[in-house]
Amino acid sequence: MGRDLTALFDPRSVAVVGASDDPAKYGHAVAAQALRAPDRRPVHLVNRRGGAVLGRTAAPSLSAIGEPVDLVVISVPGAGFEAAVDEALACGARAIVAITAGFAEAGPAGLARQRAITARVRAAGAVLVGPNCLGIADNTTELYLASDRFAPGGVALLSQSGNLALELQLRGEPHGLGYSRFVSLGNQADVTLVDLVEDCARHDATSAIAVYAEDFGDGRAFAAAAAAAGKPVVLLTAGRGTASARSARSHTGALTTSADVVAAACREAGVELVRTPREMTVVLAALGAGVRSSGRRTAVFTDGGGHGAVAADAAEDAGLAVPEFGAPTQDRLRSVLWEQSSVANPVDLAGMGEQRPRSYADTVGELLASDEVDAVLMTGYFGGYAAAEGGLGGGPAGGSVLADGEAAAAKEIVAHLTARPKPLVVQSMYPQSPSCRALAESGVPVFAATEDAARALAAMTGRGTADALGVPPLPPAAAALEDPGYHGVRALLGGAGVPFPAAHEITDESGLLAAAAGFDGPYVLKALHVLHKSDAGGVALRLADRAALLAAYREMHARLGAPAYSVEAMADLTDGVELIVGVNQDPRFGPIALVGLGGVLTETLRDVAFAPAPVPARRAEALLRGLRSAALLDGVRGRPALDVAAAAAVIERITTVAAAHPEIAELEVNPLLLRPDGALALDARAVLR
Amino acid sequence: MGRDLTALFDPRSVAVVGASDDPAKYGHAVAAQALRAPDRRPVHLVNRRGGAVLGRTAAPSLSAIGEPVDLVVISVPGAGFEAAVDEALACGARAIVAITAGFAEAGPAGLARQRAITARVRAAGAVLVGPNCLGIADNTTELYLASDRFAPGGVALLSQSGNLALELQLRGEPHGLGYSRFVSLGNQADVTLVDLVEDCARHDATSAIAVYAEDFGDGRAFAAAAAAAGKPVVLLTAGRGTASARSARSHTGALTTSADVVAAACREAGVELVRTPREMTVVLAALGAGVRSSGRRTAVFTDGGGHGAVAADAAEDAGLAVPEFGAPTQDRLRSVLWEQSSVANPVDLAGMGEQRPRSYADTVGELLASDEVDAVLMTGYFGGYAAAEGGLGGGPAGGSVLADGEAAAAKEIVAHLTARPKPLVVQSMYPQSPSCRALAESGVPVFAATEDAARALAAMTGRGTADALGVPPLPPAAAALEDPGYHGVRALLGGAGVPFPAAHEITDESGLLAAAAGFDGPYVLKALHVLHKSDAGGVALRLADRAALLAAYREMHARLGAPAYSVEAMADLTDGVELIVGVNQDPRFGPIALVGLGGVLTETLRDVAFAPAPVPARRAEALLRGLRSAALLDGVRGRPALDVAAAAAVIERITTVAAAHPEIAELEVNPLLLRPDGALALDARAVLR
Repeated sequence: MGRDLTALFDPRSVAVVGASDDPAKYGHAVAAQALRAPDRRPVHLVNRRGGAVLGRTAAPSLSAIGEPVDLVVISVPGAGFEAAVDEALACGARAIVAITAGFAEAGPAGLARQRAITARVRAAGAVLVGPNCLGIADNTTELYLASDRFAPGGVALLSQSGNLALELQLRGEPHGLGYSRFVSLGNQADVTLVDLVEDCARHDATSAIAVYAEDFGDGRAFAAAAAAAGKPVVLLTAGRGTASARSARSHTGALTTSADVVAAACREAGVELVRTPREMTVVLAALGAGVRSSGRRTAVFTDGGGHGAVAADAAEDAGLAVPEFGAPTQDRLRSVLWEQSSVANPVDLAGMGEQRPRSYADTVGELLASDEVDAVLMTGYFGGYAAAEGGLGGGPAGGSVLADGEAAAAKEIVAHLTARPKPLVVQSMYPQSPSCRALAESGVPVFAATEDAARALAAMTGRGTADALGVPPLPPAAAALEDPGYHGVRALLGGAGVPFPAAHEITDESGLLAAAAGFDGPYVLKALHVLHKSDAGGVALRLADRAALLAAYREMHARLGAPAYSVEAMADLTDGVELIVGVNQDPRFGPIALVGLGGVLTETLRDVAFAPAPVPARRAEALLRGLRSAALLDGVRGRPALDVAAAAAVIERITTVAAAHPEIAELEVNPLLLRPDGALALDARAVLR
Repeated sequence: MGRDLTALFDPRSVAVVGASDDPAKYGHAVAAQALRAPDRRPVHLVNRRGGAVLGRTAAPSLSAIGEPVDLVVISVPGAGFEAAVDEALACGARAIVAITAGFAEAGPAGLARQRAITARVRAAGAVLVGPNCLGIADNTTELYLASDRFAPGGVALLSQSGNLALELQLRGEPHGLGYSRFVSLGNQADVTLVDLVEDCARHDATSAIAVYAEDFGDGRAFAAAAAAAGKPVVLLTAGRGTASARSARSHTGALTTSADVVAAACREAGVELVRTPREMTVVLAALGAGVRSSGRRTAVFTDGGGHGAVAADAAEDAGLAVPEFGAPTQDRLRSVLWEQSSVANPVDLAGMGEQRPRSYADTVGELLASDEVDAVLMTGYFGGYAAAEGGLGGGPAGGSVLADGEAAAAKEIVAHLTARPKPLVVQSMYPQSPSCRALAESGVPVFAATEDAARALAAMTGRGTADALGVPPLPPAAAALEDPGYHGVRALLGGAGVPFPAAHEITDESGLLAAAAGFDGPYVLKALHVLHKSDAGGVALRLADRAALLAAYREMHARLGAPAYSVEAMADLTDGVELIVGVNQDPRFGPIALVGLGGVLTETLRDVAFAPAPVPARRAEALLRGLRSAALLDGVRGRPALDVAAAAAVIERITTVAAAHPEIAELEVNPLLLRPDGALALDARAVLR
């Protein structure tokens, strides 16, 4: 169900504690905004000196107001913060927006204060946003409790940065983007990103949720909430590089998460991940168009070859496919175009537009009708014929007839799109021209920059959602292990169906010989309880017979003196490839699996992929197939193809075990030998927390 | 010296053949533009029907003008083109701009016509731009012979697409970018991209050369001309994907070049390679600032943590480094900032800007003074304090004092920059604010988008030029080989200092035994004159002694019946890595070397790098060190480091041989065994053209 945030977004009354006439104080800006809707609900200003604030009489304290207050904004110096919270709760506040800073972000003492306050708020049955936040706004309830104004619209903006929120608001304007709600997340002491995503998912007036976060709190819960939201979630985050991680730490004391982990969680949750405010705006504008497609076969359509070539590259860079059309589509296009037009994809009018602007619409109509086309990127001059009239300069001389034709073409394009809805994005040199404005007003995203158009189309064609399998729920926690050791880990995984070669733990020569009698050589001997046993010379492979095994044991024991050893059957490595499968506990996103090519390749190429554990076999296979060196799985140089399905099944088992054991900080099978006829775990280790 | 293009860019007189009063005809637009500078030089309009065109009396033919014409623009239907050229030459034309289309881009017949005309023009000592072009313009000589107007400025724009040129012109305006010249390249039948780059390099009024090209003609000469230009060359090209290559082919019949080859040539030439018109404009705006740095240590400086984190990621994405500052720089910053400000990099005012806008300038001053900083990226709100006054909305209330402080800070920033010139780029939510305009007018590039600011700074910090070694000149051509065969290739390369194991070519058993007597085993046996000998089972390795060699010979000869074999000493592969070194003749860029990890890695990972041949050892080593799997060269898992310098020296020798033999279409050494103690070529082949 999620938490009830009614008092936060639609309070019966509001008080601003720390309201001020001094424009340098934040309490001034919030109070001024709060007064924008004076008839919606009572708004009280509180200033400990009383007097007049913004032309109103300010109460010297909350209790002096003389009636209960539903939501209290607190913007006072740190020293007075606790008293303000207590007074708010005493006055019946069900929601508090805490602007005041100096808590968790300032160090351990601040964190302790923050925790104490949060406990008092929760005990009173109230909710608190912040502290160290910039306020909230809800355009659907005329609630304005932040210094910035947000144009009304469908996007709920949840941001850990005030300035970035401001930039998003400014950038959205030319695209007609507006906001349903704004929440400055602050330290998320009580109300978290997860609570807010869940509430915005239920909020009918919100059509998309835009998030800027540095600290995800319970990142797994965030991803799950986003996956369940039923509306697009777009995430801007930082921390791909070391410098930005440093910055985020110092900014809000945030614990940043590896970019790989965030990207893996977003993939499963269908969250659109973006890198800059500009990209965020482009994606939001695209998603606002509503039309989506699961396919990515994109028709690039231009009136000038150069634009077509550049846009085709940009489309492929954005993850779209620009396939050559087959004969049916080429024939249909040929029937409405000139001989010199190109119809293979990119489609190029090659001058026809200047003679007959309606050829733009004819072409779009044929492209939308083709079953070889999932989406259309139109690029180049369109808009230029009317731009001359629209006062934007450029455009060939004598525009009027052409401008009329172009305006008609814009109408026809919209009609075609209504008849056959598919993602269509336009890049134009004249995005503000009457023709382009007409398209934009009918829901066709129009951009000035080619790369923006390509990114928008990628967002509309299921990129980021088509692959989403959902965030896997954690299995029930199994009984906690206590230092299982090598054979304990083997038993744990083996019990879950992970195949290992035969092995026995031994501590002396007689045990060794008894063990060796149990199966044929060649043998493997491993020293146990030795750190980095491979590097320490604690692993001997390919011991042909019992004599070789015994000799290796004596040499190794004399050198290492390990308390125990493992005698194992040597696996047949022929035609095999070594994989690595690991699971690490991420403090934000829980157990995260890593899958890659093992051995030297892992170390030198970092050719690895990530997913939240447990990893379903379908995802595991996709991770393996997505590795840069995936061609090795298909059997290069005449080798047989490997049994990737078996590896995927084993990865599901390993990651499910790890997810059921939160006390295991790291679980690793390395190598997992993948052969044409199955997968076999050759070594395993676990590190408890 | 290059060709004399004076008659093209500064003609004594001009005639437009095909001038028309019909606005749908291109001859109308060109004639109207040509008349913009009526006093600079005589402008004649020619229309075969005579009469009035654009209010002037049109001559019915060039000869009817009655005086010599220096430059003739020809915009007539194809059928009349040859006659128009002949008449122009007869009237003394020294330059022709050929708008007319239907030549090389239309097929073989058109190409033949084009070649014939080009020969006549050259015989007459004239020059010709086009055909199939959109005209030229030179703002420095008031020559306007294209339909578009280009604002005056320092950029020479050479473009194979008219619409992209128009987009660049529109995009440049907000950045104050203007153009010295514009040339529509067309089919480059006579005057080529290379001629134009050389001429623009000599053109004092041109400060940067911007190129959009699909067909580079002599790409190597283009790269060399760009390297020698002495001013920035920025290249927009397409063809990274298959779709754009398809588009370019159909657009101008262009022979597109692999993106890897173009990128390699641009790297050596110091050409800034861009992907979209927007990126082109950003880079030109950055280069217009003039300040450059060879280092890339970038200080990210913000007034809001979110912007700092996002900008740090964007900077690293753009190839900049954002290192944590040492104590000296942190101390200097601390001396001018608040306690809560971050000084490690990113530097974050953390609210100080709102209290004291001059802290922006103080910080920039300290950053420019630090020897840990090569460049500064300032990002966020700056401009917002004055934006309120500038009518751009936003900004905290009561702006006046803050706005004054911000304006003063802008002035101080410019003063700091004058005192210590380093690349500085600003990203602002308010790029049109008075403060940001003041910075822009003083030469500080200002952008609205973070990624644009980062890209601009990358262009200013030597990215694309610091690595440039120049385009290597081709060695004098050696005597051409005639089918050298395996041992011939070995001899050729061996003579150039490429080390091979001992080997003898033999044709029978007695020869085999004689050869084996010359050196010790183990041996290698290779069947010669067999296609793909390795796949065909024509290579036997690790033959321990003469008996094994003989047995292998008999088996192989019975199976393959090859006419000859090679008996070789088996190299010691211990601790070695196999490289591949190849050189291919590119039709545009000449011999191009490929270097990579050999064997399965090459096939599955495409972990290869390119450079124009001959490759100097310094570049060869950089190519190897830049491979994704380069860590293998340093000796992983306790192996000794490999002798990369030896490999680099061998690569220089191989690629020098290939470059001296243009008759070799492909030369390949695969594998080149790289060991801790040197490099050894284990196999080689050459394919003649």
